[in-house]
Amino acid sequence: MRDQEKAEGDIDSNIIYVGNKPPMNYVTAIMAVLNSGDHTEVLLKARGNAISRAVDAAEIARNRFLTNAVVKTIDIGTEAVVSEDGRKSNVSSIEICLSIDKA
Amino acid sequence: MRDQEKAEGDIDSNIIYVGNKPPMNYVTAIMAVLNSGDHTEVLLKARGNAISRAVDAAEIARNRFLTNAVVKTIDIGTEAVVSEDGRKSNVSSIEICLSIDKA
Repeated sequence: MRDQEKAEGDIDSNIIYVGNKPPMNYVTAIMAVLNSGDHTEVLLKARGNAISRAVDAAEIARNRFLTNAVVKTIDIGTEAVVSEDGRKSNVSSIEICLSIDKA
Repeated sequence: MRDQEKAEGDIDSNIIYVGNKPPMNYVTAIMAVLNSGDHTEVLLKARGNAISRAVDAAEIARNRFLTNAVVKTIDIGTEAVVSEDGRKSNVSSIEICLSIDKA
């Protein structure tokens, strides 16, 4: 369950899992990926209440720090999760792909 | 500020503003619009924390009640809001367009 945060700050990967930290943590992670030179795209993934935070992070990055970045694709979906007491439930998810033009 | 809820249940319009009510309220609003025969598309709009709820409502409607509905477009953006004490701040927003095929 806690692998939501695993890839954060790991710039070998261009996938950032957005969890419950302040949005600026994810903004800096986005910038680290896109400024590393290894990737021109970054994929933000979030579930449940963190969906709003993923949108916040994408918008802050795009409007304030990486004005050449564009939202390439947005997908929404539903994932089945099993809670600690064994009950199954569904949670909504989002994937936001931010892309920069290498000018 | 409170016009967020205005169009809910108003099936003259195909725009649903998602606020702080339970997701099922918005699911029924989606179904009312799409089953009215007047619209083949519905636009869900939400800001801030309600963004997650808009995604929930779209996913529940699509997976459970309107299996012929597809997510046509998703847009994210930033809106400037002025709070009651006059301070300006930015809030993220989402627009989800759900579309049904008239088979």
